Amino acid sequence: MQRLTHTLSMIKPLNEEAMLAARARQDNLTKPQGSLGRLEELSIKLAGIRGETTPRLERKAIITMAADHGVAAEGVSLFPQEVTAQMVANFLQGGAGINVLAHHVGARVVVVDMGVVGGFEPHPTLTCKMIDFGTQNMTRGPAMTRQQAIDAVEVGIEVLEAEIAQGLDIVGTGDMGIGNTTASSAICAAITGLPVERVIGRGTGIPDEQLSHKIEVIRRALEVNRPDPSDPLDVLSKVGGFEIGGLVGVMLGAAAHRIPIIIDGFISGAAALIATRLEPLARDYLIAAHISAEAGHRVLLEHLRLTPLLDLGMRLGEGTGAALGIFLAEAAAKILTQMATFGEAGVSQAGG
Amino acid sequence: MQRLTHTLSMIKPLNEEAMLAARARQDNLTKPQGSLGRLEELSIKLAGIRGETTPRLERKAIITMAADHGVAAEGVSLFPQEVTAQMVANFLQGGAGINVLAHHVGARVVVVDMGVVGGFEPHPTLTCKMIDFGTQNMTRGPAMTRQQAIDAVEVGIEVLEAEIAQGLDIVGTGDMGIGNTTASSAICAAITGLPVERVIGRGTGIPDEQLSHKIEVIRRALEVNRPDPSDPLDVLSKVGGFEIGGLVGVMLGAAAHRIPIIIDGFISGAAALIATRLEPLARDYLIAAHISAEAGHRVLLEHLRLTPLLDLGMRLGEGTGAALGIFLAEAAAKILTQMATFGEAGVSQAGG
Repeated sequence: MQRLTHTLSMIKPLNEEAMLAARARQDNLTKPQGSLGRLEELSIKLAGIRGETTPRLERKAIITMAADHGVAAEGVSLFPQEVTAQMVANFLQGGAGINVLAHHVGARVVVVDMGVVGGFEPHPTLTCKMIDFGTQNMTRGPAMTRQQAIDAVEVGIEVLEAEIAQGLDIVGTGDMGIGNTTASSAICAAITGLPVERVIGRGTGIPDEQLSHKIEVIRRALEVNRPDPSDPLDVLSKVGGFEIGGLVGVMLGAAAHRIPIIIDGFISGAAALIATRLEPLARDYLIAAHISAEAGHRVLLEHLRLTPLLDLGMRLGEGTGAALGIFLAEAAAKILTQMATFGEAGVSQAGG
Repeated sequence: MQRLTHTLSMIKPLNEEAMLAARARQDNLTKPQGSLGRLEELSIKLAGIRGETTPRLERKAIITMAADHGVAAEGVSLFPQEVTAQMVANFLQGGAGINVLAHHVGARVVVVDMGVVGGFEPHPTLTCKMIDFGTQNMTRGPAMTRQQAIDAVEVGIEVLEAEIAQGLDIVGTGDMGIGNTTASSAICAAITGLPVERVIGRGTGIPDEQLSHKIEVIRRALEVNRPDPSDPLDVLSKVGGFEIGGLVGVMLGAAAHRIPIIIDGFISGAAALIATRLEPLARDYLIAAHISAEAGHRVLLEHLRLTPLLDLGMRLGEGTGAALGIFLAEAAAKILTQMATFGEAGVSQAGG
């Protein structure tokens, strides 16, 4: 618990001075004021996060955490549980969506086994941080113990700090875990107090009948466990997942070290809910890459008061949305850093 | 006129066979079907444009065309006319928004003088295709002659074909010209028949009073010139601009050579209106990068039946939105080309 407590204490507000200087610089670049819209706002937020007027986002990583979910036994996904391990193998071979999009934006992919059933042989690009071989079935009791929840978060901090040691200016979050939209909806319902139907979606693409069943499964999990909404670690342990806990740690660790965090879709959003309940200041370090096609995601982002950058109907997870978000964040930072000012370029100003 | 007629005759429908094969491949990649949303649709369109199941978009260019507008004398912009030439100099020095964003996405910027007041000394990276030193003031008569309109379009085709000779897989369009949102609104009103108030915006950011004045200026130009909506070259000559004509040519040339065209904002949209009236099949080769903050842009895109990829409140022009669109198109193509199939990766399929 010490690592978590220490990390929470390190999270500070954004640097107002850097943001003011960045705003002044934006207004003096060779373009009509405000004409780069949300890229301008984003660049100013990045300045506040990094504490620099002209932040550089060169060293990029997407941390994709994988784990299995006992609740998969309830038939909440189109895909069998073995797909979690198979997709991790696909990540390691470079054939998945996240590999393609991360490479496209120049980000490295950090694949972390937080608790996949069966485990893996050692692999040079797999980070093994297994908490257990998947969570327990949350319809019958807690998904994990409180200590496991703390361990998962602390492991996430550790993974993030190891990436800082490698060089890190911006991080994206990603997930893989058959059953994890079910866990994420349960977290979202528990923390926001909204009815399950408002915070749910079709995950991998389940039909209507299976969706009703998924709602029923989540309701049962909430009834059996009665997670305490004022205690985010209680929610994580009772209806969460190991990869979700790990992502909570990644977000808190990044906020503590003033690294912008591009959050992916619904699962990362559920982790962000827990992270921001543990330390509300962490919210200012989060950038929502996109609004996913997962229906509950909109409600979740509204609750986080984050406006997504993209709306492309994506719902793959893995960090694929985060990859696109990293591209936009880097674009915003480059605008602020590399564009000429009116004075430098000898361009007349408005009304001049 | 021969080059234009020939180019129009070369524009053919998308390749249905390539699109079917691309759809089949998308559905067999290691992800839930449809989970990459609009990137999947986009990849299929790109396959149809290129006539290849797995298109590669490696050679990228943004063609940014600049010209002056006689109507600037009516006080329709926040900026003085000299800013057009100053910004072209800024493009050549690499300090503008388009330089930063094009470099970020690995696209070369092709800067074309279509008719800037004063002209330029020869410069290694400036393409000089001047039609005249700016258009005439369209509130007093036609902006240009019909022959100049044809020349502008044909020069645009020539510029595009010169880029093909350099190697070109995808092209973005961009513009610079003080007064060109006024010309674009006039084109949009003339072709769609909508009232001027519906197809107008604040351009560089003019206040309410100047906006009313801008509406009045456009109404006067339309009354004085009475452009024939059934004759796109008449509209271009009477209320258009040289850079807008050049972009029409770029779009038609690219469609003729099966090169995807990422259109930028409002000015490129006005050019697209004219291009698609000259040859409706050209529409299938257009991809709308973004919806700009320029109010008339939404109406214009609806009229073109194009759904923008991004909504970031941008309104700079130059091709800055197109640069971001090129990134997304390349992402879509890479997904289709580089991701592993279920069979290749040994991943179980849905219901498996």
